[in-house]
Amino acid sequence: MDKQKLKRKLHEIIFEAETFYGKVFDITLLIAIITSVLIVMLDSVLEIRKEFKEILIIIEWIVTILFTIEFFIRIWIIKSPKNYIFSFFGFIDLISILPTYIQLFYIGTPSLLIIRSLRLLRIFRILKLVRFIDEAMRLIESLKASFKKIVVFILGVLTIAVIIGALMYQIEGPENGFTNIPKSVYWAIVTLTTVGYGDIYPHTVLGQIIASILMILGYGIIAVPTGIVGAEIIKADFKSVSTITCPSCSTEGHEKAALYCKKCGLKLSYDS
Amino acid sequence: MDKQKLKRKLHEIIFEAETFYGKVFDITLLIAIITSVLIVMLDSVLEIRKEFKEILIIIEWIVTILFTIEFFIRIWIIKSPKNYIFSFFGFIDLISILPTYIQLFYIGTPSLLIIRSLRLLRIFRILKLVRFIDEAMRLIESLKASFKKIVVFILGVLTIAVIIGALMYQIEGPENGFTNIPKSVYWAIVTLTTVGYGDIYPHTVLGQIIASILMILGYGIIAVPTGIVGAEIIKADFKSVSTITCPSCSTEGHEKAALYCKKCGLKLSYDS
Amino acid sequence: MDKQKLKRKLHEIIFEAETFYGKVFDITLLIAIITSVLIVMLDSVLEIRKEFKEILIIIEWIVTILFTIEFFIRIWIIKSPKNYIFSFFGFIDLISILPTYIQLFYIGTPSLLIIRSLRLLRIFRILKLVRFIDEAMRLIESLKASFKKIVVFILGVLTIAVIIGALMYQIEGPENGFTNIPKSVYWAIVTLTTVGYGDIYPHTVLGQIIASILMILGYGIIAVPTGIVGAEIIKADFKSVSTITCPSCSTEGHEKAALYCKKCGLKLSYDS
Amino acid sequence: MDKQKLKRKLHEIIFEAETFYGKVFDITLLIAIITSVLIVMLDSVLEIRKEFKEILIIIEWIVTILFTIEFFIRIWIIKSPKNYIFSFFGFIDLISILPTYIQLFYIGTPSLLIIRSLRLLRIFRILKLVRFIDEAMRLIESLKASFKKIVVFILGVLTIAVIIGALMYQIEGPENGFTNIPKSVYWAIVTLTTVGYGDIYPHTVLGQIIASILMILGYGIIAVPTGIVGAEIIKADFKSVSTITCPSCSTEGHEKAALYCKKCGLKLSYDS
Repeated sequence: MDKQKLKRKLHEIIFEAETFYGKVFDITLLIAIITSVLIVMLDSVLEIRKEFKEILIIIEWIVTILFTIEFFIRIWIIKSPKNYIFSFFGFIDLISILPTYIQLFYIGTPSLLIIRSLRLLRIFRILKLVRFIDEAMRLIESLKASFKKIVVFILGVLTIAVIIGALMYQIEGPENGFTNIPKSVYWAIVTLTTVGYGDIYPHTVLGQIIASILMILGYGIIAVPTGIVGAEIIKADFKSVSTITCPSCSTEGHEKAALYCKKCGLKLSYDS
Repeated sequence: MDKQKLKRKLHEIIFEAETFYGKVFDITLLIAIITSVLIVMLDSVLEIRKEFKEILIIIEWIVTILFTIEFFIRIWIIKSPKNYIFSFFGFIDLISILPTYIQLFYIGTPSLLIIRSLRLLRIFRILKLVRFIDEAMRLIESLKASFKKIVVFILGVLTIAVIIGALMYQIEGPENGFTNIPKSVYWAIVTLTTVGYGDIYPHTVLGQIIASILMILGYGIIAVPTGIVGAEIIKADFKSVSTITCPSCSTEGHEKAALYCKKCGLKLSYDS
Repeated sequence: MDKQKLKRKLHEIIFEAETFYGKVFDITLLIAIITSVLIVMLDSVLEIRKEFKEILIIIEWIVTILFTIEFFIRIWIIKSPKNYIFSFFGFIDLISILPTYIQLFYIGTPSLLIIRSLRLLRIFRILKLVRFIDEAMRLIESLKASFKKIVVFILGVLTIAVIIGALMYQIEGPENGFTNIPKSVYWAIVTLTTVGYGDIYPHTVLGQIIASILMILGYGIIAVPTGIVGAEIIKADFKSVSTITCPSCSTEGHEKAALYCKKCGLKLSYDS
Repeated sequence: MDKQKLKRKLHEIIFEAETFYGKVFDITLLIAIITSVLIVMLDSVLEIRKEFKEILIIIEWIVTILFTIEFFIRIWIIKSPKNYIFSFFGFIDLISILPTYIQLFYIGTPSLLIIRSLRLLRIFRILKLVRFIDEAMRLIESLKASFKKIVVFILGVLTIAVIIGALMYQIEGPENGFTNIPKSVYWAIVTLTTVGYGDIYPHTVLGQIIASILMILGYGIIAVPTGIVGAEIIKADFKSVSTITCPSCSTEGHEKAALYCKKCGLKLSYDS
């Protein structure tokens, strides 16, 4: 009985944000996530690692133990632990604690790459933040709705990049930095997306003319994804405004503030 | 009695733009603001400071005294001086005059940082221009309406930048300019926003592939804020289009297609 | 009588595009404009000027004489020559021929700058192309409609650039390329507009953080002009579709292809 | 009879994607296209060509023979082979196989340029992918609908680039990298499209001011193509939204708010 009560209490704290302890838990988790991400980032700065090595390790372990406790409580109180472990958030939660423990076993002389890779994995804790953002889901919905069009658009961009890249390799050649077609395609993507690092750029007149065409092309076709996603968001906005249907004439699409049907003038009921 | 008359006259001049003296005041203020900002900017140019030091100081003092007079008149004629002083414009007006006076007290041997900081503060005088712009408020309204979505979008951009930045630190390493994760994240932001300075750029083939993906991602997701703000502006535009007012309850802002008032249900007349 | 006939004939050739000679005239003019612009551009290339000096001068004179004849014929056949000369196109037509003639008088030892300036002026011949573009006017209309908003937007961009520029001058200082505030403001504009030359870029950690904020800001606020102009174009598009008003219920905004009123079902008349 | 049956079977395999063999064919073709494009790209990388020359040649010949078989089967089973050969896809299919065969004849001592050109041509095999993309056509429709406006926009961009380019050549001069007007125009395009390589950039104060204006201009006018294409996509979306067909004349594509058929005037039923 006592165990059941504790389980219900913990469920309330972890999954509900309205109660006092629920809020405390949420804020603690938020701070822990941001701290752990900052630790990974600062740990990579040579000067900071040298100076504050002990502090970083201590904070790292505090955060990891907190996440471990959270992970096992979640498994304990959830009805179907299996579903949780193999879900997106379960995977993120597991990946957030594993690297620190695995590091213990490589304490002898681990290769630098493995340690760095494990440390890197902890950066994915930032994805735990997604839990806190409701709006994110709506944006992702809009992107999903236009997914097919976006894939077509990206394929189109890649096709242009490959053709222009190959052309520029022919025109400019290795002597001007276009050492091979993959590198030329990389340059074409850098140019088409208007990033323009300047590590590679055309030297010949013909190359500059083709680069100019590519730039104007890239400048123009940015309108395509903007139009696609924009239209999707506008549609979603207009839709979300109006779930009420007029009981008399079945007109939909009323404004949020509307009290009467704009077609037939009947009073709209907002009971639900 | 005479004082009251003067007060009313000054109120008219400062707060109303229709009268002759009101216009003169507005134009004088406009010129003073632009002059003072130009002075701060030119003052930082070594060659100009050497040559025209005296002139710059004289103009600086003229502008400061003008702003001081304006500040105290505003306090004098306004009904609730407290509200004004602690408002946005009160703060800007105060910050516009204080630095010049404070400089007087450090006439001995002030540290260079303090002088530079004080000089810097004067640049905020540019914010006094906001008073002249009515349209600005409507734009800010549109931005406010989509504030939540924009925050989510920026958090999304930062998440991508942190993950890709950590990945690139792993792939490229300090030998290619990605000295630590914060710097890699900075590079990811430079790339994702299509700025592309070229101070850091990928050297390895794998790094260039991931950079290409990041660029296309950045090129694509620019559509999201555009869609959000665009939808907001279009909605605001279409809303503001309806100039028809309900003859019964005086509600405005009806949709173009609306036949009945959305507040009271009365039929709208489209005679005009 | 003969003169009147010639005048009418010339008027037909110059102002109407439907007749055979009208088309010949238009194409000749188009070729002449493009040729003259190309000549100015090629003339600036040292290798080409050395090699083909004589040919360039000859073509330049042919084009100039053609433009001169066109100019005087226009003055002769137009009803109000004064209006034409002081119009936009009259000014462009005059500026297109003057520089070549003025050059004759400076044949002694003119300063290099004057010659270069005169040659430069001829580039404005490209504006004669505007005559051939009907669509341009509609685009300009859309831009005009949102002119006020765009000015506010540009002022906003400049305000941000001035404040961040001054801040970066303080943080980075002359030792990192931010030699003075005007240069810092120039850097801020380069960054905010996502151009990112890379001639100046932040070196300190704090500078890179502020630059990152500026980039994300620039990446986000590009949505504002896009939204403004986009909304304007969408409105113009929807408007241009529907000039017909239903004779029965006065509903506007019918689609181009619509034969019947979408509100009351009455046949729409397309007499006009 | 047997031949007819084979022909029908092949037609089914090549042109229909629903049957098992149809799917196998599609996937095989897809893999062959991507393989062949990768081969061309990798072939240009010096290290890979040296190491894997034989393997690259073998794969190249396998892919070419596959494409050749596909090409001749298509000619054989299609009703009007002439139409196919002179169509877009016929041309692409031909260009996909020819270069490899032509190379055989130049086996003696071909000039490097010819070999490189032939190798380059094979990159156009990527266009064979267009067959797999249905959505592409709809996007191209949207672009076609706004083609005229886009041309006007590009001409406008070029006009600005030519005028500003000539101006900057005058201001900066050859000593600051603006060696001639064509190069200055190239710089103006690089800046206006916000690419910003940084290979050429203004050094003088006046040049930086004009560059700033150009950047803000470029930053602003990107809104124009976005608005154009966006409006086109939104229109296409809203048009396609109406799934209601007129019960009398079967007209589709009614506006959402339409109560009566826009072709025949009959009342539309919104029962579903």
